[in-house]
Amino acid sequence: MPSLRLALAQVNPCVGDFPGNARIVLEHCRAAHAAGADVVAFPEMVIAGYPIEDLALRKSFQRAAERAVQEVASSLAADGMGDMTVILGTLGVAGDGRPVNQAAVIEAGEVVARYTKHHLPNYGVFDERRIFAPGDETCVVEARGRRLGIVICEDIWQDGGPVSRMVAADVQVLVVINGSPFEEGKGHIRHELAARRAREVSAPVAYVNLWGGQDDLVFDGQSFVVGADGALLASAPAFADALLLWDVPGDHEAPSPSAIFPPLSTDAEVYGACVTGLRDYVRKNGMSKVVLGLSGGIDSALAATIAADALGGENVVGVSLPSRYSSDHSKDDAAVLAANLGADYRVIAIEPFVSAFEATLTFDKGRRLDGVPAENLQARVRAIILMAISNSEGPLLLATGNKSELATGYTTIYGDAAGGFAPLKDLDKTRVWDLARWRNADAASRGKTPPIPPSSIEKPPSAELRPNQVDQDSLPPYDLLDEVLDSYVEHAEGRAELLARGFDEAVVDRVLSLTDRAEWKRRQYPPGPKVTALAFGRDRRLPITSRWREKVEL
Amino acid sequence: MPSLRLALAQVNPCVGDFPGNARIVLEHCRAAHAAGADVVAFPEMVIAGYPIEDLALRKSFQRAAERAVQEVASSLAADGMGDMTVILGTLGVAGDGRPVNQAAVIEAGEVVARYTKHHLPNYGVFDERRIFAPGDETCVVEARGRRLGIVICEDIWQDGGPVSRMVAADVQVLVVINGSPFEEGKGHIRHELAARRAREVSAPVAYVNLWGGQDDLVFDGQSFVVGADGALLASAPAFADALLLWDVPGDHEAPSPSAIFPPLSTDAEVYGACVTGLRDYVRKNGMSKVVLGLSGGIDSALAATIAADALGGENVVGVSLPSRYSSDHSKDDAAVLAANLGADYRVIAIEPFVSAFEATLTFDKGRRLDGVPAENLQARVRAIILMAISNSEGPLLLATGNKSELATGYTTIYGDAAGGFAPLKDLDKTRVWDLARWRNADAASRGKTPPIPPSSIEKPPSAELRPNQVDQDSLPPYDLLDEVLDSYVEHAEGRAELLARGFDEAVVDRVLSLTDRAEWKRRQYPPGPKVTALAFGRDRRLPITSRWREKVEL
Repeated sequence: MPSLRLALAQVNPCVGDFPGNARIVLEHCRAAHAAGADVVAFPEMVIAGYPIEDLALRKSFQRAAERAVQEVASSLAADGMGDMTVILGTLGVAGDGRPVNQAAVIEAGEVVARYTKHHLPNYGVFDERRIFAPGDETCVVEARGRRLGIVICEDIWQDGGPVSRMVAADVQVLVVINGSPFEEGKGHIRHELAARRAREVSAPVAYVNLWGGQDDLVFDGQSFVVGADGALLASAPAFADALLLWDVPGDHEAPSPSAIFPPLSTDAEVYGACVTGLRDYVRKNGMSKVVLGLSGGIDSALAATIAADALGGENVVGVSLPSRYSSDHSKDDAAVLAANLGADYRVIAIEPFVSAFEATLTFDKGRRLDGVPAENLQARVRAIILMAISNSEGPLLLATGNKSELATGYTTIYGDAAGGFAPLKDLDKTRVWDLARWRNADAASRGKTPPIPPSSIEKPPSAELRPNQVDQDSLPPYDLLDEVLDSYVEHAEGRAELLARGFDEAVVDRVLSLTDRAEWKRRQYPPGPKVTALAFGRDRRLPITSRWREKVEL
Repeated sequence: MPSLRLALAQVNPCVGDFPGNARIVLEHCRAAHAAGADVVAFPEMVIAGYPIEDLALRKSFQRAAERAVQEVASSLAADGMGDMTVILGTLGVAGDGRPVNQAAVIEAGEVVARYTKHHLPNYGVFDERRIFAPGDETCVVEARGRRLGIVICEDIWQDGGPVSRMVAADVQVLVVINGSPFEEGKGHIRHELAARRAREVSAPVAYVNLWGGQDDLVFDGQSFVVGADGALLASAPAFADALLLWDVPGDHEAPSPSAIFPPLSTDAEVYGACVTGLRDYVRKNGMSKVVLGLSGGIDSALAATIAADALGGENVVGVSLPSRYSSDHSKDDAAVLAANLGADYRVIAIEPFVSAFEATLTFDKGRRLDGVPAENLQARVRAIILMAISNSEGPLLLATGNKSELATGYTTIYGDAAGGFAPLKDLDKTRVWDLARWRNADAASRGKTPPIPPSSIEKPPSAELRPNQVDQDSLPPYDLLDEVLDSYVEHAEGRAELLARGFDEAVVDRVLSLTDRAEWKRRQYPPGPKVTALAFGRDRRLPITSRWREKVEL
């Protein structure tokens, strides 16, 4: 039997953009056809975008998805690509009228087979039992005499189900179409999983994944092929369009390795996820520019650098908003950063506005504004100014808070928490520093100017909301804080487990209490890209109203 | 066989408050025992509170729930109530370690039976497939020779499953323990459903429900008993503690009707839900006071009245924040309202702050602040002042927006959208007027002063952010807008269905477009009580980033 050329089309669709997504599919089909592909596979839900959430339940949306699939099929035939087998993800409708997560197989201008995802993830960020009915049949199609099994994403993450039934189906390739969101280190897990399934079905596994940002999720692509023995044979880059070609070997031929992209470092990968998440949030929502406050600190510096990498420095409005407490070096660092990025830099002193409020407002027993409320006021005056720029000129306001601040509530709601997108939302403070250092080093290694002023990285972090304030007045040291948060939030360990690991009891109780009490603030925080195993947001659903405190259990 | 006295304990637990919830259970057991009850049933998850969301997944939380059940069992025996059968809802753990939604049956100081909920709702506001494993066994216990079947909430909403298996189990009473959130008109649906199940199993159905607020949900109680023929035999009030006693008839006795509470009017019921939701959000989160801006308009007037009914007028800080555009009658109406409610009333003019920003800020091409951005600024200055009061004195800030505004994005983010709770979040503008009129008429019928100034109800609604502005400059008339929103949002109809109902095409397209584009603002809006079949929030999960527009389909 001759070999069969398989193309995996790693693309970036947009939720609800049926014409645009169909166009992306056709373009990649043309490229695959020109490259001599016999079969081209697109990711999960490529026609509708992913995840579509409750849009799945709308009849009008379901009809539009089916129409787009039919139009793709017709166009393929009309454009002379009817001889190629096209596998793509779409929203289907089951016999009982319920929506399903489906793979459609197109040949000669028609949908010749459909497969419905069996295993519907309903944990973490996923709600697929809410919107989809599960399938219960397997799908095997033939192309050039080869038997291709088709499954969708979660189907390979669960034992049993359609993959185990592929053994009896005697498939020569298992094609897995995916919408698998990025998490650090997940690429390795996917390779191991695919290798296990390949050995299980005694056939190569071809894994094609979406890439691009969708609200709080980022899809990384990194499509790949493993052989029947589990060895990696081909792979595509992260966060980019790709058409990965791989030839299923002919009879008695050895499998032919194709291009293998070296995996990125963790820093590069996480940074790339933040850039992609920000870029796609801005562009897919029809905008092109962002605005943010530049304090001279590390968070706004990293956020601005990510924004400049995503959109171009000329599309970043960086505003220094100094108060009476801002140090000169902070203002200098902000200016240098803006110059390095080529950003639109402005300086607006907040002192007159803050003074006006402080001089006028009185509270019970004639008290004046002071303490934390006075600090909050400064942050809110800054938000008013930044939102005035956003509303007057159109750029999206970025919130620059990091995950450590979001966890502990070390943020002013309607102040520095204001914004439409939060690029650092899932980066703890320790990682913010790591990524800043990595970004500077990466620039240096490419002979470019490191964008982030070293003093923004080196100086003790401070909100500069009162004289000589540093974050560590209010919080445990960040290296310790982030370790405790990693255990409590990301690994969902309880107080008993944290104490057993040797963390100081007072620190644990303080961090857990701060985290539990800040839930109400997190609910009003903007979306930002998930890059860890457990991000705040729909990944971690907790009541605001709760008297549960881990401390209760002693 | 002699009769058996059944008590349904309608109570208001708090999520995570195991000691407090156990105390509530024991208190109601004592009252039931004193009233001669043989069996007392408590609502779903009464020990843990409901819904607990991802807290269910924590081992420490699971252990605390089991410990609380064991302590209740021991206390019952120690207090001489070991002869009574107690049925209560709790968080259990299945053999494989997964959490389950469970009913525990306690007799003589021990848990003698456990039932695991079969049907796990995973639609609307519910995520139970995410956190619970389903059960597959039925539960029948005997008390005084009677066979009682036990099921949990969703089990009676789905055909098949444990209820259908009760027929063969020959039960004499079906006890249903519930955590069924309020929606207008749901009481009637519950009665019909229970009647159908009663006829199915040929036995009376005893339905006990939670009451109280939990974030965006309100449980209304309204527990009841229907006979084997479906007739209503006993019922408890809405939004209140109750111990509903009902005697299962002895052999050859006719069923004895007990107290039947007349159902509330829809207005009274919805108003009660808003009061309960607000009161419990404030109190269960450890606060006692609220603050809000009083514009003289109908929304802030109704919100303040709800707050005064929930917490007492003396716990409401009402702040008039007039601008250069505020009319004298608006200021007068705010003062009259505050006096009627006995609120802490303050006046703080925003003009100096607004002028300071307007005089200083410039934008691209030297433009000054004007148009919608200038309107937004006023709303944000108000939010700064209200948050300064909240931060300095402790009251929770209420956002006073209604559902029509939230749908169309007719609200300023970080301005009037600021707040920790939004009591009108699920009331459209038409209903805001209805409830204001109802509340005034109800006061009059009780010989009290109607709290809301008639001119707040009668005048054309205006944000008063520019001269002579009225809402209808920017939005369709509210009666029309609310009808379109009712179809599109609450009944999830598509554009085609709306046009088929005869709505004007231009109006439909404008309202749908406004609604779709405001999703990002809704994500940052505070929680508020769900009172309709479909509220914004976790009840309606849509992507922010979406190019889907109903208009595409023509």
